[in-house]
Amino acid sequence: MNNKEKLTQHISQQFNQDLEAVRSNFLAMGGLVEQQVLDAMKALVDVNVELAEAVIKNDSRINRMEIEVDEELMRIMALRHPAASDLRLVVAIGKSVTDLERIGDEAFKIARATVALYKEGESPRGYAEARSISARVSEMLHDVLDAFARFDAKAAFEVMKADSYIDREYEAAMRSLITYMMEDPRSISRILNVMNVLRSLERVGDHARNIAEQLIYMVQGIEARHTDYDEIERRLSQI
Amino acid sequence: MNNKEKLTQHISQQFNQDLEAVRSNFLAMGGLVEQQVLDAMKALVDVNVELAEAVIKNDSRINRMEIEVDEELMRIMALRHPAASDLRLVVAIGKSVTDLERIGDEAFKIARATVALYKEGESPRGYAEARSISARVSEMLHDVLDAFARFDAKAAFEVMKADSYIDREYEAAMRSLITYMMEDPRSISRILNVMNVLRSLERVGDHARNIAEQLIYMVQGIEARHTDYDEIERRLSQI
Repeated sequence: MNNKEKLTQHISQQFNQDLEAVRSNFLAMGGLVEQQVLDAMKALVDVNVELAEAVIKNDSRINRMEIEVDEELMRIMALRHPAASDLRLVVAIGKSVTDLERIGDEAFKIARATVALYKEGESPRGYAEARSISARVSEMLHDVLDAFARFDAKAAFEVMKADSYIDREYEAAMRSLITYMMEDPRSISRILNVMNVLRSLERVGDHARNIAEQLIYMVQGIEARHTDYDEIERRLSQI
Repeated sequence: MNNKEKLTQHISQQFNQDLEAVRSNFLAMGGLVEQQVLDAMKALVDVNVELAEAVIKNDSRINRMEIEVDEELMRIMALRHPAASDLRLVVAIGKSVTDLERIGDEAFKIARATVALYKEGESPRGYAEARSISARVSEMLHDVLDAFARFDAKAAFEVMKADSYIDREYEAAMRSLITYMMEDPRSISRILNVMNVLRSLERVGDHARNIAEQLIYMVQGIEARHTDYDEIERRLSQI
């Protein structure tokens, strides 16, 4: 091996290490965000204000991680000029890290609603719906991060499809809570707190779906945003 | 001028043209998104279902523009390896185009709420609040796009500060609507529709703020996300 080859190999190893490091930091951030959503929901269901406050406090860690991941991506783009699938990885992580941070914001909001419900008194309804949607949304988030770790575009497509189910469950839950509000107007303020939790969960599902779309693009170069499921399925089946 | 110089100049002119083109397409998309928010609010206030339906239909144009801008950015990164402030421009547009598309989604939701209110009957309250918040939010959006066109980081910082004002106005409006709901439970469903409009407007403000943060980063290299106003102000004043 001559010097130039050694240098090229060295550069390329360093490059792969940088990409691997940023992907690993992105996934670590994903793990923390996932835990925040689980803790926020546990705090809500157990009426555990200490846990809710821990979630609120932890949010700044997620914010810092977002900035760190973006800085690493910037450094990689400036110094290493990634191309083809490496560039798609950089772009997909750059978009997805924003979604992770916003999921963190929703966990923060759920924790804040938990504190409000502790002060105002529990809502007479909505916990069963929140638990059910939360279980599905947490699964979506877990699955999309797992798919990210495995570069699995087909698993990402399953996450996209799961989001439609959540949207329907969310709409049904909202309708039943509106009916309950009308029957018992004194509960309005407390039920609105639970509605905010449901809305946050629904948004976590949207963000998980956004990450899934980026993952499909990253792995297969297929634009999954604003695209029919049939079209995505057809293109994924051709690979 | 020798051939190499000519080639370098040619490449650099082409590069600047590409950057200029993507910035101009981003701003054109911003103009359309701004119009969508204005039209959605006009449709709400005038109970104009045709206009609301036009907003709903237009949303797919915004979605296409998002994908086009991202494709252009990808091409620039793959072929031209932008560095320093050019790279920051590419990254800032890549983040901000997502916010523009989400603002488009909020205009879509306002238009959908308008159709629902037309079917269910108008809400007895909330229009004055929606009009007031909408005027401020539209101004923020206009100002941040204008600042983007002029590379004006200080104007972007003013947009960030305006968002805090909107958050307070939004909270006050929600509280007064909750009180009204309790007084007149038959209005709950219609008031919830107006609450959804207020929430969409508040989110438009958040997205305009995100774009402002990206703009400050693009022009001055200052990280404005998750950063105290005093710190941003101090750093902007040193420039």
